Amino acid sequence: MGSMDEPIRVTVWNENFHETSERDGAAMAERYPEGIHGAIARGLGDQLGDRVVTRTATLDQPEHGLTEEVLEQTDVLTWWAHMRHDAVDDAVVQRVQDRVLSGMGLLVLHSGHFSKIFKRLMGTSCSLAWRSADDAELVWTVAPGHPIAEGVPHPIRIPEQEMYGEYFDIPAPDELVFLSTFSGGEVFRSGCTFRRGRGRIFYFSPGDQDFGVYHHPDIQRVLANAVRWAAPEQRSGREAPGLVNRKVPDFVGATPNAEVAR
Amino acid sequence: MGSMDEPIRVTVWNENFHETSERDGAAMAERYPEGIHGAIARGLGDQLGDRVVTRTATLDQPEHGLTEEVLEQTDVLTWWAHMRHDAVDDAVVQRVQDRVLSGMGLLVLHSGHFSKIFKRLMGTSCSLAWRSADDAELVWTVAPGHPIAEGVPHPIRIPEQEMYGEYFDIPAPDELVFLSTFSGGEVFRSGCTFRRGRGRIFYFSPGDQDFGVYHHPDIQRVLANAVRWAAPEQRSGREAPGLVNRKVPDFVGATPNAEVAR
Amino acid sequence: MGSMDEPIRVTVWNENFHETSERDGAAMAERYPEGIHGAIARGLGDQLGDRVVTRTATLDQPEHGLTEEVLEQTDVLTWWAHMRHDAVDDAVVQRVQDRVLSGMGLLVLHSGHFSKIFKRLMGTSCSLAWRSADDAELVWTVAPGHPIAEGVPHPIRIPEQEMYGEYFDIPAPDELVFLSTFSGGEVFRSGCTFRRGRGRIFYFSPGDQDFGVYHHPDIQRVLANAVRWAAPEQRSGREAPGLVNRKVPDFVGATPNAEVAR
Amino acid sequence: MGSMDEPIRVTVWNENFHETSERDGAAMAERYPEGIHGAIARGLGDQLGDRVVTRTATLDQPEHGLTEEVLEQTDVLTWWAHMRHDAVDDAVVQRVQDRVLSGMGLLVLHSGHFSKIFKRLMGTSCSLAWRSADDAELVWTVAPGHPIAEGVPHPIRIPEQEMYGEYFDIPAPDELVFLSTFSGGEVFRSGCTFRRGRGRIFYFSPGDQDFGVYHHPDIQRVLANAVRWAAPEQRSGREAPGLVNRKVPDFVGATPNAEVAR
Repeated sequence: MGSMDEPIRVTVWNENFHETSERDGAAMAERYPEGIHGAIARGLGDQLGDRVVTRTATLDQPEHGLTEEVLEQTDVLTWWAHMRHDAVDDAVVQRVQDRVLSGMGLLVLHSGHFSKIFKRLMGTSCSLAWRSADDAELVWTVAPGHPIAEGVPHPIRIPEQEMYGEYFDIPAPDELVFLSTFSGGEVFRSGCTFRRGRGRIFYFSPGDQDFGVYHHPDIQRVLANAVRWAAPEQRSGREAPGLVNRKVPDFVGATPNAEVAR
Repeated sequence: MGSMDEPIRVTVWNENFHETSERDGAAMAERYPEGIHGAIARGLGDQLGDRVVTRTATLDQPEHGLTEEVLEQTDVLTWWAHMRHDAVDDAVVQRVQDRVLSGMGLLVLHSGHFSKIFKRLMGTSCSLAWRSADDAELVWTVAPGHPIAEGVPHPIRIPEQEMYGEYFDIPAPDELVFLSTFSGGEVFRSGCTFRRGRGRIFYFSPGDQDFGVYHHPDIQRVLANAVRWAAPEQRSGREAPGLVNRKVPDFVGATPNAEVAR
Repeated sequence: MGSMDEPIRVTVWNENFHETSERDGAAMAERYPEGIHGAIARGLGDQLGDRVVTRTATLDQPEHGLTEEVLEQTDVLTWWAHMRHDAVDDAVVQRVQDRVLSGMGLLVLHSGHFSKIFKRLMGTSCSLAWRSADDAELVWTVAPGHPIAEGVPHPIRIPEQEMYGEYFDIPAPDELVFLSTFSGGEVFRSGCTFRRGRGRIFYFSPGDQDFGVYHHPDIQRVLANAVRWAAPEQRSGREAPGLVNRKVPDFVGATPNAEVAR
Repeated sequence: MGSMDEPIRVTVWNENFHETSERDGAAMAERYPEGIHGAIARGLGDQLGDRVVTRTATLDQPEHGLTEEVLEQTDVLTWWAHMRHDAVDDAVVQRVQDRVLSGMGLLVLHSGHFSKIFKRLMGTSCSLAWRSADDAELVWTVAPGHPIAEGVPHPIRIPEQEMYGEYFDIPAPDELVFLSTFSGGEVFRSGCTFRRGRGRIFYFSPGDQDFGVYHHPDIQRVLANAVRWAAPEQRSGREAPGLVNRKVPDFVGATPNAEVAR
C-alpha cells in the first residue's frame, strides 16, 4: 500500500464543444477561460496539491486523447460531455470500459449521464427529468462518514443550476452519498458510487455549462475527495477480471457422501 | 405459496396519546374520529378489501395489546407513536423484534422513527432534522419497479406536512423507494425497506398528527402496497434464525490436499 | 393490483444448440427430451399450475422467436444459452433490454451469464471461474425472508454439476439470495437479483446441459418463485423510463411560514 | 484531509478469557504468548509500521479499558470476545456505540459476532451455524477493487479453522468483501462492511482461539487493510448525528422563473 504516497494521475476529459461553438464560445470564454476541463484540473490542483498530477484530453484529439498509453498512466479519469456523445468512437468507449474494470477510477460529471461510457457501464437508459431555469440547488449529504463527503457543508448551496430530477434511470447505487433538491421542488440522486469490476465510479451532477459551478470551492472539494476515493491502490499492471479455468480443485479428495447428497 | 390467497392479518398499533390528550384531543377527534389507528385500518380495508383483515392495538391495553397470541396471528404490524416511546415495555419490544426476525412484516410510520423497536432494529440513533411549519411535501419514486410504488403518482403531493429532513441516521436502506422534498428545500429518504432476519420492514415518513395525511388516497395506496410487500409467505410456525451446530459436514470425506493448502 | 390474479405469461427462451448438435444431440434427447426449454416450461407448470402460462422460443426462429408482439405479451422471459451468444441479433438484444427497462422480468440461467443481454444489462465482463468435473454443488440461502427462497431447503443438494466460481464479475447484486459451494472448495454467488429501470432480473446459476438439473424439484421451485417475484404488477402498456422536460416547477413561490416554525 | 498523514490510533480489545483460564491457558500461552490482543497488535505493527499506533485493552481492566478518554483517542477499535459477552457492562457498550456513530471505526472479529456491541449495531440475532472440527477454510474475494482486499490472495488458505456457516443472521452488508468455504461444504459471508452513523464497521470471521490464525500473514494483511479503511478522516471532535430543529427554511420565497424554463 505504499502507492498511497505517490501522486494520483488524473486525466480530465472534456468534449470541449460549448467552449469552441459559435453560440456559446464567448460566454464560455468568460466563465471558463481554460475550458471546463481546465477549471476542473485547476480545482483538483488547488485542493490536492502534490497529491495529484493532472492532464487534460478532449474529443478533437487523435483517439480523443485517450490512447492506450494515456489510459495506462491514468489512475482516475473524469468525464464531462453534453452535445457530442455520439461522436465518441466506440473503440475508445470499449477501451475506457476495460480500464475501469481493470481498476481505473471514473468520475462522470453532470450531462455525462448520457455518455456512451456511462450508459454502457450502467446498463440502463440513464434518462432523467430536467429544467433549464434559474433554480437554486442544495446538495445534502446522506452518507456523512463517506470519504467523498469529508469536509463538505450540509447542504452545499449552489445559487443557480440546471435542474436534474428523478426518476434517474440508473441501477441502485452501491452507495448514495448526496441528494440534491431544487427550488422548484425536485430531487435528484446527485452523488452516487458504483463498483464495476475492479474499478470505482462516482457520478456527480452539479456542473452545467451555463453556470460557473466548477469554481465553487465546495464542489471542488467533492471532486478532490472523489478522486482520492476512486484512485486504485495498484498503480500499474492492472488487469480486468477474466474467465478462469480452475482445473485443480482446492479440496482434492473431497468425496461427497452419496447417501447424504440426494 | 398457496398462502398468498389467504387474507393478510394486519395489526395497526398506535400509542393513542394525541387522541386522548387534553391539548390535542378535540382537534384529533375532528381530524381522526377513529384515531390514527382507525384511519390507517380503514384505509387498508378500502384499498385491499378482503385481501386483508385488520385489528388495532394501543399502548394503554394490557401488554400494549401485543400479546404473544396477537403477534402469532399478525402477518404485518404497523407502528405509529410520537410522545410515549419510553412508556413501551422493553419485554414487548423484545417480543416484537423476535417476531420480525421470525418473518412478521413491520411498517414504521412517521415519528415512529424514534420508537424503541425501530432504533433496536436499526442499531443507529434514527435522529433527523425537522420543522413543524406549513411546508408542502412532494414524495418522489426512485424505484419505479418496486411493488410498494405500484400505482403511486410521481410525485405524491401533500399540501401541508411537518418537515423531516436529512441527515436521517439509519443504515443505508436495502431499497430506497421514495424521496421527499419540502418547500423549505429539505430532502428526506421517506420510503425505505430493510430486511432483518426473515422479516421485512418498511419505514414511511408522511403522517404527522397535525395533518390528515392518512386520509390521502395516495398515502393509503402506499401503505396498502407495503402491507402486501411485507407479508410473509409463511403464515404460521414462523421461527427466528438461531444458532445451529452442524456436526455432520456435507462433503464427508473431504480431505484438503495438504500440499496445495499452505 | 388486481393483475396479481391473472396468470403470469412466461416465455422460455433457449438457444437450442446442444439439443440439435451432432455431438450432444443423442445425450440431450435422453436427458431433456423436450429440450432445456421444454423442461423449464414443464417445471414452471408443475409448480405454478394455472398461475402461469408458458410458451417457448428458440434462436433458430425468425427474430429468435422474440418479436415485438411476443415480448409485449411476456411478463417474464427466461434465458438459457451457452455456445451461440454471438449469433443473437443485436436488434433483438436491444429490444429485450428495452422491455426489461419497461418492467418485463428476466431470468438469466447458468451459462447465460455470458449472453449479450446479460452483459449489456450488467455493464461488466460477467466472467467467472469454472471447472467441468464431477463436483457436487450445495445451494445455501442467505436471504431467508426473500420470496425466491420460500420453501427451498437449506442447502439444496445437487449431486453433479459444473463448477462456477468467484470472482464473478457482476455489479454487487441488489439482493444476494443464494450462495453455492462446490466439493472442490469454490464458492459462487449463484442467486442474485438486480433491478434495472422498471424491471427485475434474477440470475441463477445451477443448470448445466450435461446434468439434468432442471428436473430437480428444488431447482424448479426456485425458478417458480423467481417467476412470481419478477412478474410486473402492470400487465400492459409498460414503458421504459425516458427523458422528461419538467417545464413547470412544483414549488413556484414556495413560502414556508418561517414565523410559525418553532 | 491532511489527517491521512497522521498515524491511525488503534485500540485492540480482547476479553482475554481463554488466555487466563485454567482449561486453555497453557495452550494459549504457546499459541499466543502475548494473548490474542498482543498478536493482533503485533500484526498491525508489522504490516503498517509507523502508519499505526496500537494499544490494547481487556475485560478485566476498569471500565474494560474503554474509558471515555481512551475511546476519544481511538480511531479504530478491534473487538475479540467469545465466552464472556455477558460480562461487558452495558454502559461501556453504549459508549462504544456512540463512538462508532460518531465516526470511530470498529473491527469485529470471529466470535465477536455474538458480542453485545455487534448485536446492538446490527439489530439482529447475529446467530450462525458452526462446527469445531478440523475443517480447512478458503477465503475468497468477491470485491476485488475494495481497499480491504488489496494485496490479498484469492483464495486465502487457512489449513485449520472452526467452521462458521450460513445462515448468518445479519443485515445485508453494505459491501460483501469475502466469502469463506469450508471442507465440509459450508459457506459464510466472512468479510462484511457496514456503515452506521458516521462510523465504518468491518466484520471478519477467521480467527478462532484454537488455531493460530492471527499469525497468518494474509489474515494480518486483511486486518491492516481494514484498519486503514475504517479510520475516520476526522481525528478529533467527532460527534454522533443528532436531532436538528431547522427553524429557518432555505427556500423562503423560492420562485423559479417559469417563463425562462424551456
